[in-house]
Amino acid sequence: MTKRPLPTRDRLIQTAAELFQRSGYNGVGLSELLAEAQAPKGSLYHHFPKGKSDLALAAASWASDGMLELIAVSFKDARDFRDGIETLCHKIAKLFDKSGRWETCPISATLFEGPENQLFRDHAYRLYESWIAQVRGHAERFGVDHPQETADTLFIMLQGGWQLARARRNSDVLRNLPRFLPANVL
Amino acid sequence: MTKRPLPTRDRLIQTAAELFQRSGYNGVGLSELLAEAQAPKGSLYHHFPKGKSDLALAAASWASDGMLELIAVSFKDARDFRDGIETLCHKIAKLFDKSGRWETCPISATLFEGPENQLFRDHAYRLYESWIAQVRGHAERFGVDHPQETADTLFIMLQGGWQLARARRNSDVLRNLPRFLPANVL
Repeated sequence: MTKRPLPTRDRLIQTAAELFQRSGYNGVGLSELLAEAQAPKGSLYHHFPKGKSDLALAAASWASDGMLELIAVSFKDARDFRDGIETLCHKIAKLFDKSGRWETCPISATLFEGPENQLFRDHAYRLYESWIAQVRGHAERFGVDHPQETADTLFIMLQGGWQLARARRNSDVLRNLPRFLPANVL
Repeated sequence: MTKRPLPTRDRLIQTAAELFQRSGYNGVGLSELLAEAQAPKGSLYHHFPKGKSDLALAAASWASDGMLELIAVSFKDARDFRDGIETLCHKIAKLFDKSGRWETCPISATLFEGPENQLFRDHAYRLYESWIAQVRGHAERFGVDHPQETADTLFIMLQGGWQLARARRNSDVLRNLPRFLPANVL
């Protein structure tokens, strides 16, 4: 939990993102969430009329914004596409170490549980595609061949790399990803 | 749910694997599980003294055996390493279509929830490494350079590819994976 004095709505969102990332959407109870966020039940339904599911959408968007910011920062002063990718992988490895080497992808944790929830699925799809689109934009800017396939591949490597890093509890898996990116991609 | 008349222990394991894959370990209640498996509570604790957590370990092992079998079959008549990988990716794409394009990795769904559970973590690590070791063995047999890195990369691509396939609800992501494997790998 953050210690900064945040508005209740932000506190709810950030707490939800952290708890879902640790235990999955179904693994977090409403009372646990409210206690952690130090928010009364009424404030939850004030800000998020549908309660937990509304909050999950907002938490996933917030976590996704963090990833978009990470991509933007990594490519800000990049000399070329590979340089940007290497910075991004290092930053994600650091994030992994900070997360206690356990948490899963926040979008996946929040929005990929509950097979019947079309709204969750569509939201996850849009957030993921927004990451991929941003990387594709940088690939285009640097004149990389096949920018869409390149961005897809990077997404795949980061998701799968995070999973193997979790299993091995070793962020070097993420740091080493650029070495295994296809040559035709970089 | 399978319709074959299986022994209770197997019914419990397969039902658990299916339900966890759909809703995550925390998202499945014991009563739902017993009802789906048509098993009395006593039989659960007879076969799995620690109940749900014991069952989760067995379900993950069972699902993992399925993946090992898929790798073995894919490489059985492979002409070369790339041929085996292409067969494997096609088989996994078919599995994805059969799964209703929704389920997550069974190991991940079962064993990556609950940050305090060292036993789950260790079990997931061992199962994943057994997949990687088997692929590494085939890479060695076919004289591929860097067999360990190759096997790691394939694991990463399959995990991440499955995730993107879920988001897009499109198994072609998995079918196309071999096109994006590094040239130095194949």
